[in-house]
Amino acid sequence: MSERGSPAACELCRDDGGRVLWREPALRVVLVDDRDYPGFLRVVWNAHVREMSDLEAGDRGRFMAAVFAAEAALRQVLAPDKVNLASLGNLTPHLHWHVIPRYAGDAHFPQPIWGPRQRDPDPAALAQRTARLAQLGPAIEALLRGAPVPFAGQGR
Amino acid sequence: MSERGSPAACELCRDDGGRVLWREPALRVVLVDDRDYPGFLRVVWNAHVREMSDLEAGDRGRFMAAVFAAEAALRQVLAPDKVNLASLGNLTPHLHWHVIPRYAGDAHFPQPIWGPRQRDPDPAALAQRTARLAQLGPAIEALLRGAPVPFAGQGR
Repeated sequence: MSERGSPAACELCRDDGGRVLWREPALRVVLVDDRDYPGFLRVVWNAHVREMSDLEAGDRGRFMAAVFAAEAALRQVLAPDKVNLASLGNLTPHLHWHVIPRYAGDAHFPQPIWGPRQRDPDPAALAQRTARLAQLGPAIEALLRGAPVPFAGQGR
Repeated sequence: MSERGSPAACELCRDDGGRVLWREPALRVVLVDDRDYPGFLRVVWNAHVREMSDLEAGDRGRFMAAVFAAEAALRQVLAPDKVNLASLGNLTPHLHWHVIPRYAGDAHFPQPIWGPRQRDPDPAALAQRTARLAQLGPAIEALLRGAPVPFAGQGR
Protein backbone atom coordinates (compact mmCIF):
# COMPACT_ATOMS: atom_id res chain seq x y z
CA MET A 1 0.00 0.00 0.00
CA SER A 2 1.02 3.62 -0.40
CA GLU A 3 2.83 5.77 2.11
CA ARG A 4 -0.56 6.99 3.33
CA GLY A 5 -0.91 3.64 5.06
CA SER A 6 2.01 4.33 7.39
CA PRO A 7 1.50 6.07 10.74
CA ALA A 8 4.02 8.78 9.80
CA ALA A 9 1.81 9.90 6.89
CA CYS A 10 -1.55 9.19 8.56
CA GLU A 11 -3.81 12.17 9.08
CA LEU A 12 -5.66 10.45 11.95
CA CYS A 13 -2.35 9.90 13.76
CA ARG A 14 -1.42 13.55 13.21
CA ASP A 15 -4.78 15.28 13.81
CA ASP A 16 -7.97 14.62 15.75
CA GLY A 17 -9.96 14.65 12.49
CA GLY A 18 -12.65 17.02 13.77
CA ARG A 19 -13.86 18.79 16.90
CA VAL A 20 -13.50 16.36 19.79
CA LEU A 21 -16.78 15.73 21.64
CA TRP A 22 -15.55 12.80 23.68
CA ARG A 23 -12.11 11.42 24.35
CA GLU A 24 -10.95 8.39 26.31
CA PRO A 25 -7.63 6.52 26.24
CA ALA A 26 -8.58 4.18 23.40
CA LEU A 27 -10.78 6.34 21.17
CA ARG A 28 -12.34 9.71 20.42
CA VAL A 29 -15.65 10.93 18.98
CA VAL A 30 -15.31 13.96 16.70
CA LEU A 31 -17.75 16.27 14.95
CA VAL A 32 -16.90 16.57 11.26
CA ASP A 33 -17.15 19.97 9.58
CA ASP A 34 -19.36 19.16 6.56
CA ARG A 35 -21.81 21.85 5.44
CA ASP A 36 -24.15 19.28 3.89
CA TYR A 37 -24.19 17.06 6.95
CA PRO A 38 -24.33 18.91 10.28
CA GLY A 39 -23.99 16.28 12.99
CA PHE A 40 -21.72 14.01 10.92
CA LEU A 41 -19.67 12.20 13.59
CA ARG A 42 -16.59 10.03 13.40
CA VAL A 43 -15.47 7.58 16.06
CA VAL A 44 -11.72 7.19 15.73
CA TRP A 45 -9.52 4.54 17.33
CA ASN A 46 -6.55 6.36 18.76
CA ALA A 47 -3.93 3.77 17.76
CA HIS A 48 -3.06 3.17 14.10
CA VAL A 49 -4.87 -0.13 13.50
CA ARG A 50 -6.07 -1.21 10.08
CA GLU A 51 -9.03 -3.58 10.46
CA MET A 52 -11.68 -4.30 13.11
CA SER A 53 -10.53 -7.94 13.17
CA ASP A 54 -7.05 -6.73 14.19
CA LEU A 55 -8.48 -5.52 17.52
CA GLU A 56 -9.01 -7.71 20.55
CA ALA A 57 -12.63 -8.56 21.33
CA GLY A 58 -12.86 -6.24 24.33
CA ASP A 59 -11.49 -3.33 22.32
CA ARG A 60 -13.92 -4.03 19.50
CA GLY A 61 -16.73 -4.04 22.03
CA ARG A 62 -15.82 -0.66 23.47
CA PHE A 63 -15.30 0.78 19.99
CA MET A 64 -18.74 -0.35 18.86
CA ALA A 65 -20.28 0.87 22.13
CA ALA A 66 -18.99 4.34 21.22
CA VAL A 67 -20.32 4.00 17.65
CA PHE A 68 -23.76 3.03 18.91
CA ALA A 69 -23.67 5.81 21.53
CA ALA A 70 -22.91 8.27 18.71
CA GLU A 71 -25.86 6.86 16.75
CA ALA A 72 -28.16 7.09 19.78
CA ALA A 73 -27.05 10.68 20.49
CA LEU A 74 -27.76 11.66 16.87
CA ARG A 75 -31.23 10.16 17.10
CA GLN A 76 -31.93 11.96 20.40
CA VAL A 77 -30.69 15.35 19.22
CA LEU A 78 -31.36 15.43 15.46
CA ALA A 79 -34.05 12.77 14.83
CA PRO A 80 -32.68 11.78 11.40
CA ASP A 81 -34.71 9.63 9.01
CA LYS A 82 -31.85 7.10 8.99
CA VAL A 83 -28.38 6.69 10.43
CA ASN A 84 -25.56 5.43 8.20
CA LEU A 85 -22.57 3.63 9.75
CA ALA A 86 -19.41 2.83 7.83
CA SER A 87 -15.80 1.79 8.41
CA LEU A 88 -14.03 2.08 5.06
CA GLY A 89 -10.45 3.34 5.38
CA ASN A 90 -9.28 2.83 1.82
CA LEU A 91 -7.51 6.20 1.82
CA THR A 92 -6.79 6.38 5.55
CA PRO A 93 -6.32 2.82 6.84
CA HIS A 94 -6.57 3.88 10.48
CA LEU A 95 -9.79 2.58 12.02
CA HIS A 96 -12.56 5.19 12.06
CA TRP A 97 -16.32 4.90 11.87
CA HIS A 98 -18.50 7.37 10.01
CA VAL A 99 -21.79 7.94 11.86
CA ILE A 100 -23.98 10.04 9.57
CA PRO A 101 -27.48 11.44 10.16
CA ARG A 102 -29.48 11.13 6.94
CA TYR A 103 -32.69 12.87 5.87
CA ALA A 104 -34.96 12.32 2.90
CA GLY A 105 -34.11 15.82 1.64
CA ASP A 106 -30.36 15.75 2.17
CA ALA A 107 -27.74 16.18 -0.54
CA HIS A 108 -27.50 12.49 -1.52
CA PHE A 109 -30.54 10.66 -0.12
CA PRO A 110 -31.32 7.83 -0.75
CA GLN A 111 -27.81 7.32 -2.13
CA PRO A 112 -24.84 6.88 0.21
CA ILE A 113 -23.07 10.20 0.80
CA TRP A 114 -20.27 8.91 -1.47
CA GLY A 115 -22.70 8.44 -4.35
CA PRO A 116 -23.99 10.99 -6.87
CA ARG A 117 -25.28 14.22 -5.42
CA GLN A 118 -29.07 14.44 -5.70
CA ARG A 119 -29.90 18.03 -4.73
CA ASP A 120 -28.95 21.05 -2.67
CA PRO A 121 -30.49 20.59 0.78
CA ASP A 122 -32.89 23.16 2.21
CA PRO A 123 -30.78 25.82 4.00
CA ALA A 124 -33.43 26.28 6.72
CA ALA A 125 -33.33 22.58 7.54
CA LEU A 126 -29.53 22.67 7.72
CA ALA A 127 -29.64 25.74 9.99
CA GLN A 128 -32.15 24.07 12.29
CA ARG A 129 -29.90 21.01 12.62
CA THR A 130 -26.79 23.13 13.09
CA ALA A 131 -28.47 25.00 15.96
CA ARG A 132 -28.81 21.72 17.86
CA LEU A 133 -25.22 20.54 17.54
CA ALA A 134 -24.20 21.86 20.96
CA GLN A 135 -26.43 19.18 22.48
CA LEU A 136 -24.48 16.33 20.87
CA GLY A 137 -21.43 16.37 23.15
CA PRO A 138 -23.45 16.16 26.39
CA ALA A 139 -25.66 13.44 24.90
CA ILE A 140 -22.64 11.33 23.94
CA GLU A 141 -21.01 11.92 27.30
CA ALA A 142 -24.15 10.85 29.15
CA LEU A 143 -24.22 7.62 27.14
CA LEU A 144 -20.54 6.79 27.54
CA ARG A 145 -19.53 8.09 30.96
CA GLY A 146 -20.05 5.85 33.91
CA ALA A 147 -23.26 4.33 32.61
CA PRO A 148 -23.33 0.60 32.02
CA VAL A 149 -21.54 -0.19 28.80
CA PRO A 150 -24.41 -0.11 26.29
CA PHE A 151 -23.11 -3.09 24.39
CA ALA A 152 -22.96 -6.37 26.23
CA GLY A 153 -22.18 -8.46 23.18
CA GLN A 154 -23.05 -11.81 24.72
CA GLY A 155 -23.71 -15.14 22.95
CA ARG A 156 -26.30 -16.21 20.46
CA MET B 1 -40.91 7.32 4.60
CA SER B 2 -41.98 5.48 1.48
CA GLU B 3 -43.74 2.16 1.30
CA ARG B 4 -40.31 0.51 0.89
CA GLY B 5 -39.87 1.06 4.62
CA SER B 6 -42.70 -1.28 5.50
CA PRO B 7 -42.10 -5.01 6.00
CA ALA B 8 -44.70 -5.86 3.34
CA ALA B 9 -42.61 -4.11 0.68
CA CYS B 10 -39.18 -5.00 2.08
CA GLU B 11 -36.96 -7.10 -0.14
CA LEU B 12 -34.99 -8.43 2.85
CA CYS B 13 -38.21 -9.64 4.45
CA ARG B 14 -39.24 -11.30 1.20
CA ASP B 15 -35.90 -12.74 0.01
CA ASP B 16 -32.63 -13.90 1.54
CA GLY B 17 -30.76 -11.22 -0.43
CA GLY B 18 -28.06 -13.57 -1.72
CA ARG B 19 -26.78 -17.12 -1.42
CA VAL B 20 -26.99 -18.09 2.25
CA LEU B 21 -23.62 -19.17 3.70
CA TRP B 22 -24.72 -19.18 7.31
CA ARG B 23 -28.11 -19.00 8.96
CA GLU B 24 -29.13 -18.86 12.60
CA PRO B 25 -32.42 -17.79 14.21
CA ALA B 26 -31.53 -14.11 14.45
CA LEU B 27 -29.45 -13.50 11.32
CA ARG B 28 -27.98 -14.80 8.08
CA VAL B 29 -24.76 -14.27 6.13
CA VAL B 30 -25.25 -14.15 2.36
CA LEU B 31 -22.91 -14.00 -0.63
CA VAL B 32 -23.91 -11.17 -2.96
CA ASP B 33 -23.78 -11.76 -6.72
CA ASP B 34 -21.66 -8.79 -7.87
CA ARG B 35 -19.32 -9.37 -10.80
CA ASP B 36 -16.97 -6.58 -9.69
CA TYR B 37 -16.77 -7.80 -6.11
CA PRO B 38 -16.56 -11.58 -5.72
CA GLY B 39 -16.74 -12.29 -2.00
CA PHE B 40 -19.05 -9.33 -1.24
CA LEU B 41 -20.96 -10.51 1.85
CA ARG B 42 -24.00 -9.17 3.63
CA VAL B 43 -24.98 -9.94 7.19
CA VAL B 44 -28.74 -9.52 7.46
CA TRP B 45 -30.80 -9.34 10.63
CA ASN B 46 -33.78 -11.62 10.08
CA ALA B 47 -36.37 -9.36 11.71
CA HIS B 48 -37.37 -6.04 10.13
CA VAL B 49 -35.50 -3.62 12.42
CA ARG B 50 -34.41 -0.18 11.28
CA GLU B 51 -31.39 0.93 13.34
CA MET B 52 -28.65 -0.78 15.36
CA SER B 53 -29.72 1.24 18.41
CA ASP B 54 -33.19 -0.34 18.14
CA LEU B 55 -31.65 -3.73 19.00
CA GLU B 56 -30.96 -4.93 22.52
CA ALA B 57 -27.31 -5.01 23.53
CA GLY B 58 -27.02 -8.79 23.34
CA ASP B 59 -28.51 -8.85 19.86
CA ARG B 60 -26.17 -6.10 18.71
CA GLY B 61 -23.28 -8.12 20.08
CA ARG B 62 -24.20 -11.24 18.19
CA PHE B 63 -24.86 -9.25 15.01
CA MET B 64 -21.44 -7.61 15.16
CA ALA B 65 -19.82 -10.96 15.98
CA ALA B 66 -21.21 -12.22 12.68
CA VAL B 67 -20.01 -9.09 10.85
CA PHE B 68 -16.50 -9.50 12.24
CA ALA B 69 -16.55 -13.23 11.48
CA ALA B 70 -17.46 -12.36 7.88
CA GLU B 71 -14.56 -9.91 7.79
CA ALA B 72 -12.16 -12.46 9.26
CA ALA B 73 -13.30 -15.12 6.78
CA LEU B 74 -12.75 -12.73 3.87
CA ARG B 75 -9.24 -11.99 5.10
CA GLN B 76 -8.45 -15.70 5.49
CA VAL B 77 -9.80 -16.73 2.10
CA LEU B 78 -9.28 -13.69 -0.15
CA ALA B 79 -6.56 -11.58 1.54
CA PRO B 80 -8.04 -8.24 0.45
CA ASP B 81 -6.04 -5.02 0.76
CA LYS B 82 -8.85 -3.58 2.92
CA VAL B 83 -12.27 -4.59 4.20
CA ASN B 84 -15.14 -2.09 4.05
CA LEU B 85 -18.03 -2.38 6.52
CA ALA B 86 -21.25 -0.41 6.20
CA SER B 87 -24.81 -0.36 7.51
CA LEU B 88 -26.72 2.18 5.41
CA GLY B 89 -30.31 1.11 4.69
CA ASN B 90 -31.60 4.30 3.11
CA LEU B 91 -33.42 2.33 0.43
CA THR B 92 -34.01 -0.83 2.44
CA PRO B 93 -34.35 0.15 6.12
CA HIS B 94 -34.00 -3.43 7.34
CA LEU B 95 -30.69 -3.87 9.17
CA HIS B 96 -27.99 -5.36 6.95
CA TRP B 97 -24.22 -4.96 6.94
CA HIS B 98 -22.17 -4.82 3.77
CA VAL B 99 -18.83 -6.60 4.23
CA ILE B 100 -16.76 -5.90 1.13
CA PRO B 101 -13.28 -7.14 0.19
CA ARG B 102 -11.38 -4.27 -1.46
CA TYR B 103 -8.25 -4.34 -3.63
CA ALA B 104 -6.06 -1.56 -4.95
CA GLY B 105 -7.03 -2.56 -8.53
CA ASP B 106 -10.76 -3.02 -8.01
CA ALA B 107 -13.48 -1.12 -9.84
CA HIS B 108 -13.68 1.81 -7.38
CA PHE B 109 -10.55 1.78 -5.20
CA PRO B 110 -9.76 3.95 -3.27
CA GLN B 111 -13.30 5.30 -3.51
CA PRO B 112 -16.18 3.59 -1.70
CA ILE B 113 -17.99 1.15 -4.00
CA TRP B 114 -20.85 3.70 -4.16
CA GLY B 115 -18.52 6.38 -5.53
CA PRO B 116 -17.35 6.99 -9.09
CA ARG B 117 -16.07 3.97 -10.95
CA GLN B 118 -12.30 4.14 -11.44
CA ARG B 119 -11.50 1.29 -13.83
CA ASP B 120 -12.44 -2.16 -15.08
CA PRO B 121 -10.77 -4.67 -12.78
CA ASP B 122 -8.37 -7.29 -14.15
CA PRO B 123 -10.46 -10.33 -15.22
CA ALA B 124 -7.73 -12.75 -14.13
CA ALA B 125 -7.73 -11.30 -10.61
CA LEU B 126 -11.52 -11.57 -10.46
CA ALA B 127 -11.39 -15.18 -11.67
CA GLN B 128 -8.77 -16.05 -9.07
CA ARG B 129 -10.96 -14.61 -6.30
CA THR B 130 -14.09 -16.28 -7.66
CA ALA B 131 -12.33 -19.64 -7.59
CA ARG B 132 -11.85 -19.31 -3.83
CA LEU B 133 -15.43 -18.45 -2.91
CA ALA B 134 -16.35 -22.01 -1.98
CA GLN B 135 -14.03 -21.66 1.02
CA LEU B 136 -15.97 -18.75 2.48
CA GLY B 137 -18.93 -20.69 3.87
CA PRO B 138 -16.80 -23.17 5.82
CA ALA B 139 -14.58 -20.35 7.12
CA ILE B 140 -17.59 -18.40 8.41
CA GLU B 141 -19.10 -21.53 9.92
CA ALA B 142 -15.88 -22.36 11.74
CA LEU B 143 -15.83 -18.85 13.22
CA LEU B 144 -19.48 -18.77 14.28
CA ARG B 145 -20.39 -22.34 15.20
CA GLY B 146 -19.71 -23.47 18.71
CA ALA B 147 -16.50 -21.52 19.07
CA PRO B 148 -16.34 -18.87 21.77
CA VAL B 149 -18.25 -15.82 20.61
CA PRO B 150 -15.47 -13.77 18.98
CA PHE B 151 -16.81 -10.53 20.33
CA ALA B 152 -16.91 -10.16 24.09
CA GLY B 153 -17.73 -6.48 24.07
CA GLN B 154 -16.78 -5.83 27.67
CA GLY B 155 -16.05 -2.49 29.39
CA ARG B 156 -13.65 0.29 28.65
